Amino acid sequence: MSKNKGILIVVSGFSGAGKGTLMKRLLGEYDNYALSISATTRGPRQGEVDGREYFFKTTEEFEKMIAQDELIEYARYVNNYYGTPKEYVMQQLAAGKDVVLEIEIQGALKVKEKYPDTLLLFVTPPSAKVLKERLIGRGTETMEVIESRMKRAVEESQGMDRYDYLVINDDLETCVKEMHHIIQSEHGRVSRSAEFIGRIRRELEEL
Amino acid sequence: MSKNKGILIVVSGFSGAGKGTLMKRLLGEYDNYALSISATTRGPRQGEVDGREYFFKTTEEFEKMIAQDELIEYARYVNNYYGTPKEYVMQQLAAGKDVVLEIEIQGALKVKEKYPDTLLLFVTPPSAKVLKERLIGRGTETMEVIESRMKRAVEESQGMDRYDYLVINDDLETCVKEMHHIIQSEHGRVSRSAEFIGRIRRELEEL
Repeated sequence: MSKNKGILIVVSGFSGAGKGTLMKRLLGEYDNYALSISATTRGPRQGEVDGREYFFKTTEEFEKMIAQDELIEYARYVNNYYGTPKEYVMQQLAAGKDVVLEIEIQGALKVKEKYPDTLLLFVTPPSAKVLKERLIGRGTETMEVIESRMKRAVEESQGMDRYDYLVINDDLETCVKEMHHIIQSEHGRVSRSAEFIGRIRRELEEL
Repeated sequence: MSKNKGILIVVSGFSGAGKGTLMKRLLGEYDNYALSISATTRGPRQGEVDGREYFFKTTEEFEKMIAQDELIEYARYVNNYYGTPKEYVMQQLAAGKDVVLEIEIQGALKVKEKYPDTLLLFVTPPSAKVLKERLIGRGTETMEVIESRMKRAVEESQGMDRYDYLVINDDLETCVKEMHHIIQSEHGRVSRSAEFIGRIRRELEEL
């Protein structure tokens, strides 16, 4: 495939769809991906390392990043900012890496608006029943939290058709491969191949 | 992937890009494809079998098929008709097969107009130089024929950006796999997943 510049990929999906594990496997198995690291003003939790889970920022620093247009997107939840620093993403794309952002739907749509060739992937279990079973199976959530996640999933499902592809996470191994194939196939999209098309047209005329 | 109805795929590409071999390998290695067989009024060549290479028709029969809208597309070259019978294609799609038509650009665009969710693939060698080398390497064409094919490639290259994907045929093995991945990824397109999205939304509301 004609692969020069990387593709910016946003991954969203229902809580409990297995996004986290999926991302870890994708990045572990293939070397053409880079995971974007978010910046946040919330304090680090136990075991979190600055520059690994998040870039931890003060509110002042974060607002300076906003003012200087250094974020691809940002949002405020419960008095804390979360956002995607632009510099790292752009460096990785320029180096030919496909850069994955894991953000929820509002952020995803903002990124797509700003960068229309962003690839939007929505991870979903094969059915609502499986989603609920997985949330229960985790054993870490109260039934109250599970019910609120399921309610949130109803809302999230309203946005599914704003995405480019569904990634149905039934079997993890299969799903990692499918996700990789979706992204790599996208490199062959005619709309991403202007350079190749221009080159071969010139060559044909010159031969 | 949510796979119910098959996808209609049109494969075009430069003469010498290796479409024929590629199709043979794709259909030989994966069982989810069906190759559409064209109808024609030209006489069978040595070794050609009715219903295998072509459906051989009289001009009267062919014109009856046109009149009864039994062709997806058709064209006339050098006093002979060539066209794609609709019935077989529709049966295969309904049975969940991805159906491949190998036709040139004018036909491809007609099919896309009539069936907008047709997937258009354009097979190309990695460079014009490789294309010429392959045409020469066949050893079956005069330099005159090769020159006319190269001239035709210049024209064909003008239509490349009307396609959905480029399939760059550098190494055959890799290319067969890439083509398969492009088509299978397409099954996960949100625009082809209305049924899945509708179902999971209903399920989530009912749970």
